[in-house]
Amino acid sequence: MEFSLGQIAELISGKVEGDSSLKVSRLDKIQEGLPGGISFLSNEKYESFIYDTKATAVIVSESFEPQRPISTNLIRVKNAYEGFTLLLEAYAMMVTSGKSGTEEPSFFDPTSTIGKDFYRGAFSYVGKNCLLGDSVKIYPNVYIGNMVKIGNNTIIHAGVKIYDNTQIGNNCEIHPGAVIGGDGFGFAPLPDGSYKKIPQLGNVVIEDNVSIGTNTTIDCATMGSTLIKKGAKIDNLVQIAHNVTIGENTVIAAQAGISGSTEIGKNCVIAGKAGIVGHLKIADNTTIGANTGISKSIHKPGLTIFGYMGYEIKDFLKSYGLFKKLPELHDRIKELEKKT
Amino acid sequence: MEFSLGQIAELISGKVEGDSSLKVSRLDKIQEGLPGGISFLSNEKYESFIYDTKATAVIVSESFEPQRPISTNLIRVKNAYEGFTLLLEAYAMMVTSGKSGTEEPSFFDPTSTIGKDFYRGAFSYVGKNCLLGDSVKIYPNVYIGNMVKIGNNTIIHAGVKIYDNTQIGNNCEIHPGAVIGGDGFGFAPLPDGSYKKIPQLGNVVIEDNVSIGTNTTIDCATMGSTLIKKGAKIDNLVQIAHNVTIGENTVIAAQAGISGSTEIGKNCVIAGKAGIVGHLKIADNTTIGANTGISKSIHKPGLTIFGYMGYEIKDFLKSYGLFKKLPELHDRIKELEKKT
Amino acid sequence: MEFSLGQIAELISGKVEGDSSLKVSRLDKIQEGLPGGISFLSNEKYESFIYDTKATAVIVSESFEPQRPISTNLIRVKNAYEGFTLLLEAYAMMVTSGKSGTEEPSFFDPTSTIGKDFYRGAFSYVGKNCLLGDSVKIYPNVYIGNMVKIGNNTIIHAGVKIYDNTQIGNNCEIHPGAVIGGDGFGFAPLPDGSYKKIPQLGNVVIEDNVSIGTNTTIDCATMGSTLIKKGAKIDNLVQIAHNVTIGENTVIAAQAGISGSTEIGKNCVIAGKAGIVGHLKIADNTTIGANTGISKSIHKPGLTIFGYMGYEIKDFLKSYGLFKKLPELHDRIKELEKKT
Repeated sequence: MEFSLGQIAELISGKVEGDSSLKVSRLDKIQEGLPGGISFLSNEKYESFIYDTKATAVIVSESFEPQRPISTNLIRVKNAYEGFTLLLEAYAMMVTSGKSGTEEPSFFDPTSTIGKDFYRGAFSYVGKNCLLGDSVKIYPNVYIGNMVKIGNNTIIHAGVKIYDNTQIGNNCEIHPGAVIGGDGFGFAPLPDGSYKKIPQLGNVVIEDNVSIGTNTTIDCATMGSTLIKKGAKIDNLVQIAHNVTIGENTVIAAQAGISGSTEIGKNCVIAGKAGIVGHLKIADNTTIGANTGISKSIHKPGLTIFGYMGYEIKDFLKSYGLFKKLPELHDRIKELEKKT
Repeated sequence: MEFSLGQIAELISGKVEGDSSLKVSRLDKIQEGLPGGISFLSNEKYESFIYDTKATAVIVSESFEPQRPISTNLIRVKNAYEGFTLLLEAYAMMVTSGKSGTEEPSFFDPTSTIGKDFYRGAFSYVGKNCLLGDSVKIYPNVYIGNMVKIGNNTIIHAGVKIYDNTQIGNNCEIHPGAVIGGDGFGFAPLPDGSYKKIPQLGNVVIEDNVSIGTNTTIDCATMGSTLIKKGAKIDNLVQIAHNVTIGENTVIAAQAGISGSTEIGKNCVIAGKAGIVGHLKIADNTTIGANTGISKSIHKPGLTIFGYMGYEIKDFLKSYGLFKKLPELHDRIKELEKKT
Repeated sequence: MEFSLGQIAELISGKVEGDSSLKVSRLDKIQEGLPGGISFLSNEKYESFIYDTKATAVIVSESFEPQRPISTNLIRVKNAYEGFTLLLEAYAMMVTSGKSGTEEPSFFDPTSTIGKDFYRGAFSYVGKNCLLGDSVKIYPNVYIGNMVKIGNNTIIHAGVKIYDNTQIGNNCEIHPGAVIGGDGFGFAPLPDGSYKKIPQLGNVVIEDNVSIGTNTTIDCATMGSTLIKKGAKIDNLVQIAHNVTIGENTVIAAQAGISGSTEIGKNCVIAGKAGIVGHLKIADNTTIGANTGISKSIHKPGLTIFGYMGYEIKDFLKSYGLFKKLPELHDRIKELEKKT
């Protein structure tokens, strides 16, 4: 898709300084701009790039005053970052809104229903007694089992698998390859050292505005529900075990893992590769650092926790600083021993 | 599916105290019980919930004596936990046994065979010269390559990929998105700094009663077999590299990783996110804690290992306790230095 | 496929010592050799096995002089390891070259093109305006979005998902279940504590000779490209976030994770489970140990980094050695305190 600078200026309420008939078809970073691309300058750290960029145009703020001659074209708006964000959103909408209708072959059990304006990709599968809302997009190679409910405007990306009884709200996005509602890892030990599977009969409930990352796994509850509350954002390759609760607007970065029955509060931030053992409670507004292990509940809200067996970050860093100096401390102990 | 309390009592050899014609259609946790659900009380920690639960019925043990009036209906059995487990299993069997026959379109090479009472979902693929047993269930969007053998009663969930020459035993369950028999990570360095792939020509052998978790990856051997012995239970997002052996009834939790050619003994427990480097031997009955790194073989059976570079847990925890006190130890060293 | 020892000797320029009419159909490890298999002896550590192996034949180097009588047949070549590698490659080519043509049903948008000698498996999906090269193999259940370019001789394994605008070079291999070009994890916080998705409009560019592991996830850039340079080899369950660059011939082992906008140099080796935070630069030829966390840029090339908050390995190991001795150090401090 190509647009003239004039069209873009109109969309983002800006004014062209240069040739408004020029066309662009791509969004570029300012330091990598090439002809046919449009970029933006918001952070002054990047100002030097505007004098040399090869991008056809750059969106700048009203307040921007060039220190040297500029060869690119400008679109001047009140706030360059907001203007560019508007453009991004318009572009994203155009790119994704194209998908609609049904591609064949696909499988849709006649006991299930879907709203209006949907997309169902080729080789997608919808089992029995499902209730799918309006404007739902189901990409190719998706598997949806029986009795699954999905709200309006939710996007299920390619190759996602959603097992029986899962409930997903409105405006959610489930990224490619994620698995929602696979069996929890529950086995009862037998006297001979082998294990017997405990049937996993609960489900997964995902509220509105939730994002689930690529190849992430969320297991169904043994009984009851594994619950992802509204606004939670979960990254790629994350493991959420059976009966876990993730609070509202909590963010979980890639490769983190939450063990069974743990409850995470709202507005928490859990960084990449963090691991939380089972049956804990983590208070609201807790920040858990990358690669941190958590083996005890955190009752006080608002703490920042870090470390192999995580505790408050300032205490951890003090100890870690001395860990790095252990050879020196050891020398000092030896010196003291010599003297006494 | 709805059942009367009388039907359930008969199934689990119990006696109704209350209205045996009432119907339930759901299994609830006692603290979350709602009308139409049945729950159980086994652990006395949860006894307080039985007096207020809104569940239609609760399964209790013969020995249970209420301390206050109860409004829910009871089903009294010898052992409440065992009674409830029986009910779970019956329910699970009803839920899954519905799947049979072939959904179209599906792909099944005519050189392959499958036993009786099977299920083959839509968009499932079975390549050449495969031997699939009785009562095998192959969910939608599964890929099975060539010369794959699968025993009786094994369930292959949605979107699983099984590569050439894999052998899977009886009563196994491979959860959604798992990949069995992908190429091992083997490359030979060349003088110019680049790498050349070493062909990966072995296979994966999975014995009876094994469970493989969602999106877990088990690579084929370079030569010979990557071997998962009978009764092993492997959780989600686990990496099992080429030529690894996992012993009988060993349990591996989510996001753990086992590097190439390592042999894990039987009846081991490997907790979440643990990592074991290649070419090691881990003795039988070893327990490896969450997030533990193992870089040396463990020859003595029955140890519990923990820590960033794991060793025996009691020694690790002593050192870690002092790690947390390093600022204090440092102060004490400074004090000593002042005095001498 | 069966071959006589004579045929194999011809293929690898060797000489049979024994019965050159005997046939083999399998490659065995020497310690596990069985009749009908061929093995090799290169590392002298394994020499003892050649005297007892039940393999039909063993490839040995010219220089090999048996210390005891041997019952197996020998194929003698200049260098046993190279001879065996030649055989592996010939075998691998025969095994995989069978795949060609189109299996139905499959989905291929008429605006897309594909070269000659391709394979397109059943239930594979190719969207609009894609340009796929010669000898491309697309396995079953693959999803390829719109405007994707794939070079010659590239293999896309079962269940891989490749999103819009991705570019993949020649001679690449994308293993089963990998997801290329899923959305980056970008959200802008709103005043009420919730988050708004930042549209992810960039793409992924993968150069020639790259290998991407099973169920690995590589996110598209917010703008511009996530870039995997030529010859990089990435293992299973690895997370590569938006706008990351991986240098030429860099190797990344299983379950490692690279956060957004980090640039990894060329010829690096990143071991399993390592994690690197965002917006860093890692110099060429850096080695990062297993499970190591990296939170600062590494500017000097050629270092080996290790540890929970990784720094140079020899320093880390000195401190870690003393960490293990902390209880003893503590006793020595107490002793000093008594004395002074």
